[in-house]
Amino acid sequence: MSPFIQRTDQIITPTLLLDEEQARRNIAAMARRAAEQGVIFRPHFKTHQAAAVGEWFRDYDVTAITVSSVSMARYFAQSGWRDITIAFPVNLRELAEIDALAAEVRLGLLLDASAVADRLAAELTHPVDVWIEIDTEYRRSGALWSDKEWLADVAVRCEAAPQLSLRGVLCHAGNTYGARSLDAVRQIHATTMARMTAARAATAAATRRDDLQISIGDTPACALLDDLGSVDEMRPGNFVFYDLVQEQIGACRMGEIAVAVACPVVGVYPRRRELALYGGAVHLSKDALTLDSGQPSFGCIAPLTESGWGEPFPGAYLRSVSQEHGVVSVAEEAWPGVCASLAVGDLVAVLPVHSCLTANLLKRYLTLGGQNIEMAAIPR
Amino acid sequence: MSPFIQRTDQIITPTLLLDEEQARRNIAAMARRAAEQGVIFRPHFKTHQAAAVGEWFRDYDVTAITVSSVSMARYFAQSGWRDITIAFPVNLRELAEIDALAAEVRLGLLLDASAVADRLAAELTHPVDVWIEIDTEYRRSGALWSDKEWLADVAVRCEAAPQLSLRGVLCHAGNTYGARSLDAVRQIHATTMARMTAARAATAAATRRDDLQISIGDTPACALLDDLGSVDEMRPGNFVFYDLVQEQIGACRMGEIAVAVACPVVGVYPRRRELALYGGAVHLSKDALTLDSGQPSFGCIAPLTESGWGEPFPGAYLRSVSQEHGVVSVAEEAWPGVCASLAVGDLVAVLPVHSCLTANLLKRYLTLGGQNIEMAAIPR
Repeated sequence: MSPFIQRTDQIITPTLLLDEEQARRNIAAMARRAAEQGVIFRPHFKTHQAAAVGEWFRDYDVTAITVSSVSMARYFAQSGWRDITIAFPVNLRELAEIDALAAEVRLGLLLDASAVADRLAAELTHPVDVWIEIDTEYRRSGALWSDKEWLADVAVRCEAAPQLSLRGVLCHAGNTYGARSLDAVRQIHATTMARMTAARAATAAATRRDDLQISIGDTPACALLDDLGSVDEMRPGNFVFYDLVQEQIGACRMGEIAVAVACPVVGVYPRRRELALYGGAVHLSKDALTLDSGQPSFGCIAPLTESGWGEPFPGAYLRSVSQEHGVVSVAEEAWPGVCASLAVGDLVAVLPVHSCLTANLLKRYLTLGGQNIEMAAIPR
Repeated sequence: MSPFIQRTDQIITPTLLLDEEQARRNIAAMARRAAEQGVIFRPHFKTHQAAAVGEWFRDYDVTAITVSSVSMARYFAQSGWRDITIAFPVNLRELAEIDALAAEVRLGLLLDASAVADRLAAELTHPVDVWIEIDTEYRRSGALWSDKEWLADVAVRCEAAPQLSLRGVLCHAGNTYGARSLDAVRQIHATTMARMTAARAATAAATRRDDLQISIGDTPACALLDDLGSVDEMRPGNFVFYDLVQEQIGACRMGEIAVAVACPVVGVYPRRRELALYGGAVHLSKDALTLDSGQPSFGCIAPLTESGWGEPFPGAYLRSVSQEHGVVSVAEEAWPGVCASLAVGDLVAVLPVHSCLTANLLKRYLTLGGQNIEMAAIPR
């Protein structure tokens, strides 16, 4: 028996399975893409949030990482990372923590307003790298790419502050998450890069700097495009595990998804051809994707196998989740096959819609090699 | 200065605020509704998941509670509760834990299939109460209310097992969450009760029992209806805090919502009249409601006040959340008012769409009296 199958008897509640070999292949592939294009690879660790998984990146000479909170930066600093960008707008209420961290590691911060630059200049006692976050019209955070005066003002104030070392312009072009083809990703990325180049030009003109970099972050562009254009740094995160959203975009194949949640079957309902799973919003999150039918899906299901999980059952998907329940709807032609392999008390693998949120909820992994990996106990 | 305002300087990351006085009023009101109707009040503790909040229910002579997992039952057993229903289909992989718990407390279990009854009969060594879960066409878990043969078979097998004490039929009529008026809730409840009465009749006929009870759980019906009909037991949970979903249904008023997340403002974008908040899917969950405009809303925002939070800003709502970011959209006429009271670095209160999921994510409360309350460290 494989170490994994030996452990499945001990799985009694929803458990996040991690295919370590696949995750390492995903890391290797992305590191190779970055190297081939001469782009700095600064992976985002918010997806896995685990020191042990972070170590796998060192095999590919990764020394610089991205995180999404000050507490996550603290956690990875404690596991030896010395060059960390917090890819979230500076939270002015955390300046004391930020300053303490900047004393220990090379810390990168994001800002998008001159008032924030001024506060950093006034209060930080240790040097930090700063990036001007650009809104390329994803409309989350960032200074609008076309607002040259705003950008020039922010850049000048950064340059004037001795503690702040302006590195360049940075964005998260989440627009690619709406793409459903390589061509669509390519077009969105081209628009993003035109805007990032314009934003860099505005900041370069204001500061007379010719070394400002461009940093991007979205997994679809990083995973799919062989020519990222004038990108200097990439910060993808999701690719380490991938998920159904990335599969729907075309950024990965189903077999490249490296995590799944083993869920006990707690109900089988032949009349409505549905299953109830122990596995709900507190395990998977409420993130959904939209199927071709227009229905929301909260995951798909796959059989557990000797070595992990198999191909998803066709015609079956998680149609709803509440706090602890998941309800799987099965198409008529698929029902006999699902019924033949699953009964109440069995385990089934749920491939997550959004692996970052699922990992954040479950807090630990069971690898297919039978190892437990704990995630950060990050205070919220 | 109030104890709360003294503490706000120490709020540096998203923090779940709890208006203890309002939560106690919500408990008192629901306990009174149950007493007036002569219905057993067995509140669901999955919403708050905190031993300290559970203690507040004892002032209203609550001795029986509901939880949604075996681990949550274990947690509340450890804080002294002795009559606990796990309102989730029995997970056959947890029978050893269930049996151990049944040795210590009066434990209620839900089942909907004869195969499950047989397994309980074969493996439990301690007595338990059992409820036949009924699907009144909410289609989550439960035996279909109209399937008399199925119900009779389950009931007979429960009666035949010496460890199993059949208490009655139980449902969660989540259909009321789609209602938007008292009349709609009343109609849905009437349908639910007709089906529950039929289901009870089928089990009573098969077992020759005349004492089988009916237990219901949805907060909207429990909060709104003065006559629940032939209900014997109610298990609402959400009402302790309420949230925007309940407000939209009409089950509570905005002022009865007892929790809000204090979120730092990290971006102000006048051109698009939006704010970026430190407060995203890992704090609030991705649960959304649909506004009259058809847009999804992940929360609304309100100013912090001397004693807590005020009325929500009209014309502003959280239009999107990603892992750590929330984006607030503000209507043109409301923008000057929002801008005048909020700047980068300030705190704003976010009223949650679904308080159960928000509490589950944040794991602790700060009361408006300045106390910290920790939630269960429930293993997942």
